[in-house]
Amino acid sequence: MADTGFAFRVLARDGGARRGEMRTPHGVVQTPAFMPVGTQGAVKGVTHRDLEDLGDGLGAEIILGNTYHLYLRPGDALIARAGGLHRFIGWNRPILTDSGGYQVFSLAERRRISEDGAEFRSHLDGSLHLLTPERATDIQAQLGSDIAMVLDECIATPAPDDAARVAMERSVRWAARARARWQRITDDPASVSGVVATNPGQVQFGIIQGGVHPGLRTESVQATVALGFEAYAIGGLSVGEPPDVTYDVVAHTAPQVPEDRPRYLMGSGMPDDLVECVARGIDLFDCVLPTRNARNGQLFTRSGPISIKNARYAEDASPPDPDCRCYTCRHFSRAYLRHLFVSGEMAAATLNTVHNLHFYLDTLRSIREAIMLGTFEKLRSEFHQTFSRRSQLNA
Amino acid sequence: MADTGFAFRVLARDGGARRGEMRTPHGVVQTPAFMPVGTQGAVKGVTHRDLEDLGDGLGAEIILGNTYHLYLRPGDALIARAGGLHRFIGWNRPILTDSGGYQVFSLAERRRISEDGAEFRSHLDGSLHLLTPERATDIQAQLGSDIAMVLDECIATPAPDDAARVAMERSVRWAARARARWQRITDDPASVSGVVATNPGQVQFGIIQGGVHPGLRTESVQATVALGFEAYAIGGLSVGEPPDVTYDVVAHTAPQVPEDRPRYLMGSGMPDDLVECVARGIDLFDCVLPTRNARNGQLFTRSGPISIKNARYAEDASPPDPDCRCYTCRHFSRAYLRHLFVSGEMAAATLNTVHNLHFYLDTLRSIREAIMLGTFEKLRSEFHQTFSRRSQLNA
Repeated sequence: MADTGFAFRVLARDGGARRGEMRTPHGVVQTPAFMPVGTQGAVKGVTHRDLEDLGDGLGAEIILGNTYHLYLRPGDALIARAGGLHRFIGWNRPILTDSGGYQVFSLAERRRISEDGAEFRSHLDGSLHLLTPERATDIQAQLGSDIAMVLDECIATPAPDDAARVAMERSVRWAARARARWQRITDDPASVSGVVATNPGQVQFGIIQGGVHPGLRTESVQATVALGFEAYAIGGLSVGEPPDVTYDVVAHTAPQVPEDRPRYLMGSGMPDDLVECVARGIDLFDCVLPTRNARNGQLFTRSGPISIKNARYAEDASPPDPDCRCYTCRHFSRAYLRHLFVSGEMAAATLNTVHNLHFYLDTLRSIREAIMLGTFEKLRSEFHQTFSRRSQLNA
Repeated sequence: MADTGFAFRVLARDGGARRGEMRTPHGVVQTPAFMPVGTQGAVKGVTHRDLEDLGDGLGAEIILGNTYHLYLRPGDALIARAGGLHRFIGWNRPILTDSGGYQVFSLAERRRISEDGAEFRSHLDGSLHLLTPERATDIQAQLGSDIAMVLDECIATPAPDDAARVAMERSVRWAARARARWQRITDDPASVSGVVATNPGQVQFGIIQGGVHPGLRTESVQATVALGFEAYAIGGLSVGEPPDVTYDVVAHTAPQVPEDRPRYLMGSGMPDDLVECVARGIDLFDCVLPTRNARNGQLFTRSGPISIKNARYAEDASPPDPDCRCYTCRHFSRAYLRHLFVSGEMAAATLNTVHNLHFYLDTLRSIREAIMLGTFEKLRSEFHQTFSRRSQLNA
């Protein structure tokens, strides 16, 4: 491994759960960690100071940026000229960028996948683009995130075995190309013309694919780990399959990934998914649920989600979650939050987002503490006793 | 005057400018002061903690709520049951509410004015409502703002002399009715059935009308002051007339209002309007410009407004206003703010609003300091030397 300043160590174990520390060029991340999604260089609904841990802040130690969005607008070249994504957006803590692949598969128009890469048209202006493993690596090098992801092929789930195999095998070949590109940029940045690497300490994570098929997952782990990434993510889950299937694939896959590297479950999930996947050895999570659902009026509580627009909250003077210490819950009632939401006030999105991110980040804080104390199983069973995925109409 | 806990004293004078302190049931306001507009119980784009003065906050000492909006949704009765507007919205500092009249004239559908009041249909659902001087007083008593405004008749400017006279004289008659109602609620709240006054210390300001006609303004002052309000506002300005006309009417009207009461210029204005009207004896301002223009991408700077969406800022690493100490200017570049704006990110509205409100509140802070030091004229001339109302394309 190149000396990138990246390091990971496991501080404690409790069953399958791990408590760790991930060092990056922009600071240390305590794991298990949840990464708020900062799609276009901003976490929707809040500002950086809401995310930071000074005063009333949420204490987010790392955020995620979407390469697809930033590549299309304002463009990775502009961001590189500004000194990289951290400087451009004024966020000095760790950033992970995805490869752009997921958005190409979910957002872009008229995509065409070939061995070379993914050709697609921008959802913004219809312009034609080709995202290859090398290009996705270059773009992230220009963005200068602390952690870059390889381009992988995302397929719909459930997929037949053969489609999952084809995509998994292609993802491995793409991972090899992405790794070679990253290595060249890291070893000799001047040799890659047109690419300004803005973070010399950037590392690259591989992604395990293989759908819901244990055999394919095992093959993917073996081939991907052989390429020697700094760490590994599990991709292609939380795409509509039942939670038990997700858990089974994670339980099958995570233990095969090298113990001394962080394990990142991409795009997951509901709060109980986080607890269950920590139990199966996951260290990093990202998900749009807390932020997106906040903007739709759904607030996560210890009992489960509540829909703040419901008329039953019109005169409810209690906070969203009476046990919560976030800024929103310490100052505002469900009645006021409902009023803001039904009135279309921006403050609804902000206050709901602050609460939901606090719920996620605080759940992870509790998890980390419990692992250190050896009480993770107690936390896990208590969590499931109170939390239900279904909307809490009587909450 | 009933013992409402309301008081005003002038601490210093510098020419026509006054430096004062206004005491209300929810705290003291240093004047001259600017009141951010919290239309529906929230200042658009920011949260209360952005407005407060802890840490990075803006130090807003008073905000304005719109009676028209709060009456229609969630309703003054609901807010009264919640303990009043302060408790409902979680803001513990002074609040001024307008009478609802201005929105009836600008927003509502099919309004019909009679001596009784203003009949109108809600812009939300078409429902029929009648806003009388008494009803506007009752609603504000239920809201429990610290300062209530009388219902007045707003007319388009410029208006012919006779239309301005008719509206001014009706406004005086309405002011008498509003005052009688306020007196009854204040003296014997139980006697007014169906009204729960949630702030026993609420006071009521009269409003001087008369368009741009000095004679009508003088008549309005005399008749309104004779009714004995805690303070007086100048209404019917900043409705499209040239700035010089505004200034002349203010210069004519303000000195006629009792010296020992704060003078409030309603709905004004651009930053240079504030400086010029302080020079003519105004103590209180409110305006949607800093918040509304922020959401439209216009940022106020010491040179004048800039339009952040302009392509010239795409790679501009400087803050919106290099001399500004607000959260936005200390952390973010014009390039990032432009990116957020063109990408439709909510953070654009928030960061722009934080800056614009800081610009307004900071301008007032400088004005207060200058009056104390006897250097207001110096500040005034320096302000005009740098600030231009026109958009600063080369800023």
